[in-house]
Amino acid sequence: MKAINIKEKFSKFNKNWHPHQIAVVDDMQVILAKLKGEFVWHSHEHEDELFQVIKGTLHMHFRNRVEVVKEGEVIVVPKGIEHNPKTIDNEEVHVLLFEKISTAHTGNVQHEKTQTEYPKI
Amino acid sequence: MKAINIKEKFSKFNKNWHPHQIAVVDDMQVILAKLKGEFVWHSHEHEDELFQVIKGTLHMHFRNRVEVVKEGEVIVVPKGIEHNPKTIDNEEVHVLLFEKISTAHTGNVQHEKTQTEYPKI
Repeated sequence: MKAINIKEKFSKFNKNWHPHQIAVVDDMQVILAKLKGEFVWHSHEHEDELFQVIKGTLHMHFRNRVEVVKEGEVIVVPKGIEHNPKTIDNEEVHVLLFEKISTAHTGNVQHEKTQTEYPKI
Repeated sequence: MKAINIKEKFSKFNKNWHPHQIAVVDDMQVILAKLKGEFVWHSHEHEDELFQVIKGTLHMHFRNRVEVVKEGEVIVVPKGIEHNPKTIDNEEVHVLLFEKISTAHTGNVQHEKTQTEYPKI
């Protein structure tokens, strides 16, 4: 029951596309990630996924359009919807995600970016 | 699947201690509230509750101590733990909460501040 400083937690890791867990709320977790470039097309069959942009501008690609999500904004990707987070001009974008602990990083897709362990920081 | 601007959503209501829902993630909801003064001692028997401070400084009172939560910080209040959010010097503090949709505003306590309906904005 301690205050958790989001920016201070971001200072604890550098790797891109590697979520780190900062809190658990019931069966959901709060994770932080540093995004740069393009991720992987995937979906989560059973779980919604919330992204909150803490720094920079996230370009959330869907199969038929792109939604731009700026600092101070959130977006919910509903279960079953294919998405691919990207950043522009090699910007490193910091996001907080809120999702079920059971959510697989890249859904059913296996990719070199896929992480199965999220360090707790 | 649209970006939701948190500060713009805060501009849509003025009442203190009255949560407004901005998003749903599986069986959880994201709500915004403007806090000023003291709330009500209560706990949630079955649900954890996450507070993220968007503006100002939250003083989260527990029965045996106070945790100060500043802008850019989050705190998780575990299920079953009595808590009472307060602000100092009549500051209006803006918080984002993640919690189960089933979470009752003031737990099992009935109080004039208790809200049963959270407007969707």
